[in-house]
Parts: sequence; C-alpha cells; structure tokens
Amino acid sequence: MFATILHAPHDVRYEHLPDPQILKPTDAILQLAATCICGSDLWPYRGLQPVERPQPMGHEYCGTVVAVGADVRTVKPGQFVVGSFCISDNTCPHCAYGFHSSCTQGEFMSGAQAPFARVPLADGTLVATAEMPSPDQVVDLLAVSDVLGTGWYAAHAAGVKPGAVVLVVGDGAVGLMGVLAAKQLGAERILIMSRHASRQKLALEYGATDIVATRGDEGIARVLDLTRGIGADSVLECVGTQESFAQALACCRPGGGIGYVGVPHGVTLDARQLFFGQRRMLGGPAPVRRFLPDLMQRVLDGKIHPGKVFDLELPIARVAEGYAAMDAREAIKVLLRVAA
Amino acid sequence: MFATILHAPHDVRYEHLPDPQILKPTDAILQLAATCICGSDLWPYRGLQPVERPQPMGHEYCGTVVAVGADVRTVKPGQFVVGSFCISDNTCPHCAYGFHSSCTQGEFMSGAQAPFARVPLADGTLVATAEMPSPDQVVDLLAVSDVLGTGWYAAHAAGVKPGAVVLVVGDGAVGLMGVLAAKQLGAERILIMSRHASRQKLALEYGATDIVATRGDEGIARVLDLTRGIGADSVLECVGTQESFAQALACCRPGGGIGYVGVPHGVTLDARQLFFGQRRMLGGPAPVRRFLPDLMQRVLDGKIHPGKVFDLELPIARVAEGYAAMDAREAIKVLLRVAA
Repeated sequence: MFATILHAPHDVRYEHLPDPQILKPTDAILQLAATCICGSDLWPYRGLQPVERPQPMGHEYCGTVVAVGADVRTVKPGQFVVGSFCISDNTCPHCAYGFHSSCTQGEFMSGAQAPFARVPLADGTLVATAEMPSPDQVVDLLAVSDVLGTGWYAAHAAGVKPGAVVLVVGDGAVGLMGVLAAKQLGAERILIMSRHASRQKLALEYGATDIVATRGDEGIARVLDLTRGIGADSVLECVGTQESFAQALACCRPGGGIGYVGVPHGVTLDARQLFFGQRRMLGGPAPVRRFLPDLMQRVLDGKIHPGKVFDLELPIARVAEGYAAMDAREAIKVLLRVAA
Repeated sequence: MFATILHAPHDVRYEHLPDPQILKPTDAILQLAATCICGSDLWPYRGLQPVERPQPMGHEYCGTVVAVGADVRTVKPGQFVVGSFCISDNTCPHCAYGFHSSCTQGEFMSGAQAPFARVPLADGTLVATAEMPSPDQVVDLLAVSDVLGTGWYAAHAAGVKPGAVVLVVGDGAVGLMGVLAAKQLGAERILIMSRHASRQKLALEYGATDIVATRGDEGIARVLDLTRGIGADSVLECVGTQESFAQALACCRPGGGIGYVGVPHGVTLDARQLFFGQRRMLGGPAPVRRFLPDLMQRVLDGKIHPGKVFDLELPIARVAEGYAAMDAREAIKVLLRVAA
C-alpha cells in the first residue's frame, strides 16, 4: 500500500510501504474508512519537534476490521470500529480509573494516514458500531477518535457543569470541539478566543456565545469584562504555549478549573503563582477510550456533528497539500479520503 | 498591651504596642483565648522571606469579642468566636464559590500573637459558638483557625474520597492535620512521609496506616511499592519545596489529585511533565471560612482533637523560645497561653 511518511520538516510524502500485518495476537488490522491530519502533526512538520527518522504519520482512524490476532475477542472482521489515538488495554488500574492514556501497556497510535492500519491491543482500544454507518456518520465518527475526544476531555478536565461560564483558549479544531463539548455538558456561556472569521462562524454554530478577538492583556481584560470581573468557571486550554497558558490562568476564577489538552511546548509554571491563583488544573493526552461509547452514540443519534470541523477534503494521495493548508491556517482540519 | 514583633530573622520580641482599636465599622476586637506559632511564620523568621520592617506576627486565633464596629451584625461582645487566617467578606463571588482566601476584599490576618487583636470584616470572617467552650475545646478550636483548616483543604483539594489511598508529604503540623482530615473523609489507607518519631506517633494516632521514612527516589519507590505500583489516589503536599513537589508528583496516580498547601518557595513546574503525568492539581491559601462551621462542630462534638498537634505550651511572653523550638524542629507546633 501507499502511506504518509514525514521525512523532515515540511517534507511529507505519500509513498509505498509494506501492508500492515498482525504482529501480536492482540492486534487488529483495519481498512480505514477515512483519516485526517491532526494539529499535533504540525509540531514535527514545522520542525518544532525533532524528526529523527522517516516517520509514518496519522493517529485518527475508523474503519472496518479486516483481520484480528488469535487473542482478540471483542471485535471481528467485518465490523466497523472507532479507536482512540491512545492504545490501551482497558483493564489495567489506570484504565479502570478512566485514564486510558496512561495505560500501563499504552502506546500512541501511528501510521493511520493510510488505507490500512495495525491497531495494537484491539480489544481494549476499539469500539464497534452495531451497524455500518452512513458516509456522513463516518466523518463524524472519525472526529470522535481524537479531536472531539480531546475537546471533550478538556471540558471534563476543566470541570464544565450545567450553567457554567466557559472560556476556550484556541480556535483550532480541538478548541472548536471544546465549544461543542461545553455546550453538550450544559454550559450557559461559552467564550472563545478567535481572530479567524471561518473559525468564529463554526464556533458560533457549535454554541459559542461570545467571541474574544483580542489577545494578551487586552484579551484578558475583555474576558474579565464579559464575566463581570469574576473570570470563567472553566477554561479549556487548547494550544500549549506559554502565552496560551498565561491567558488561561488569568481568565479563570479562583477555584475554577483549567483543562489543558494542547501538548505544552516549552511551558513553565510558577507554583507560587498557581498557589495564590487557586486554579484547579488537569491536562494530558485525552483518555478518549473512556468517552468513546458515549460520543459514538451521540453521533449515531444525530445529536452532534463534530465532522463539520473538516473544512478541506482531499484524496489521501494529496496529503502533502493538506499539511501545507493546515500549516498556513488555510484549513481548520483536513479530511483524507481513502480509496475503497 | 504587649505583642509579638519580628524585627529581623531570628529576632522576635514580645514588646509594648498600642492596644488594637476599631478602625473601620466592620471591625471587631477580640480578647484571645490562646494563640500559636505557624510553620509559615518560620519563613520570615529563617530569613527565607524578607523582613522589611518590624512585623506584628500571628494569624491563628480564637477568643471573646470585646468590641465591634457600628456595621457588625453577626457577632457581638461576649461571644466566643473562631476566625480564619484569611479575612473575607463571605459575600463576594469568590466567597460564594467557596474560595474565601481569594475574597475581593480579602487580606491576611496579622498581629494575633498577642492578648488582643483586631479582626477586619468581622461578619464575614468570624463564626461564634453557642456557648463558651471548655479550656480543652479552646485548644482544639484554635487549631481550626489555620492548621486544621489548611490540612482539611489539602484533603479536599486532593479529592480525598471514602476508600481512597492517600499520601501526605510533610510531617509538620499541617501534614498531621492532613492525616486527620483524610481519616475523617473516609480514606482507607493513609501514608505519611516522616522521619521523626514524635510526629510518626501522632500521625498513627490520627489515622496513618503506613509511615514512609525514606526520601527522594527511595521514598518514591517505597510509596509505589506500598500502592502496588499504582501510586496514591490523593496526595497532600504540605511543605512547598521543589523536592516535596517532585515527591508528590511522582507518587500520585494518573488522574489522581494533588492538594498543595505549603506556600511554594522557588518551585517551578514543567507543564509538559504535568501533562503526561495527568495529575489533578489544586492548591492555595486554605479557604478555611468555608469549613469553619463544620470543623467547629466536629470539635464541639468531641469527634476530633486537632489540638494534640500542640506539643509545647508557653506563656506568650516567652514566644521567642517557641520560635526557636519550632525552628529547631524540637516542637511540632507551639501554643501560646495568653494571660486573662
């Protein structure tokens, strides 16, 4: 098959690779229904994370099981499944506690920007649908795999409750999913920091009530103004820079929660400042597996349409164009169509 | 009257000061029943916090109201009251949210190592008992004012739940109160890091199940060993140094909570490490006012005896000896008796 390989910053290629094989008895092989490019793929693409060797890209996926290892019990060939970008056994103490992204056997999915992919720990990682989803549902289910699961976790980690005042820092795909999540969890007001018209539009569609188009001290002042000087009950930090953390910390009320899901790059926190600020903080790679059954059901019931976050669709052979478009912020998130 | 003044590191004196007066209509003047020395008083005493001018010391107090300002409504002369070390109005949005230590009118209590003290915002800060407490109850009620309230908050902030495995980092008075709090909140196992026989003994009396007498990597290994490799569900960080934070972070399970109540001194946290560790964190000056009615009732019902943490009792005129004893770790916490 052909698959997406990052060779060096800004050098992503769709090229020949051996077909994935069952390597362990707990593996499954999927034929992917669609795949996509993640904001986090841009860190190595931009050279902000080292690329030491050619790297198979892609960790968001859904599709049909085509083969399983001898020990796989809960999914079988022919079933449509969705998995998390975090591989997990779903049985270890950390999984049992709901933190599948810290699974003792955990690893990160890779190589999913391709027509076929190997998924380790298939029983623990994959969740099957009862029936084959429609093409529209496939797009929504693909979003569940990471971007929605991550936005959802941000809202959970930030402690969003019915009636809450929520601030989303970051108008990338995850931030927009954070808006959707906050709305589903009953937030009354949802502010999002955004300076891009197309993202503002989608944020409003997903339930945002206020757009904050300024940044830095001006942005902080605006959020405090919109929250009667109190700050937000819950802040979803969906970027991962020192500036975005500063924004999140300054805009959260004492005792409020910050859920941070943008992988921090060079971010240092002063414990004394956190102490006197009294913010609750929880972040990390999202334990999407915990939320998968619920989120898949919301999609299949037609309650949510996370797939709207894909605003550019390309055949997977043109994956390099997709990276370039996201890098230039011309696209929020790129869907890659895989030939049947 | 005479009162306790810190002039410079290691130079604390009991000397003449004007009697406190009502300065604002929301003030009350208390005749203190007893007072005490706090672990946090040692930071400036040891020169680890600047002493820019002679500083009236003491922020833990209970006693009888002797005068109130014209606007005070909820307490009156003759009543016995307990207050928090954080002055608060109990009506602002942060107080209403339970975070009195971030009150918009908030300030820190001072000058309570004396026979009389002025308490600002008396209505919001003080809670009266129905009857005059017994001398034993006075000692327990004094502990509620800060040290128990702070240990209690640490347990709340760390999310201690019935059945939890809890680790307390720090065997100072606050750490020992953290043990008491964890026990009251239903923890099943309570580990405490302690290398001092007298503190270990009190910890066991308050409900600790395991003493960890090693530190650093060895201490971490021991905690993980005692928790089947999982780590503690909740960690109470009651010190405030880089080393104690490292201990807390390493011993907490993913998704577990760290409540940090030791004022951080020079502690820096790497957000990426926090991210991949997935620890919930909340700390700060304890909003003791939130817990006062409950904790006072537990004392008056004879359910808890936080006053056992005072292992040295001195007449207040000998306050300098008390500081020296706590500085040398010869005493856990010093009670200062105020002449009637």
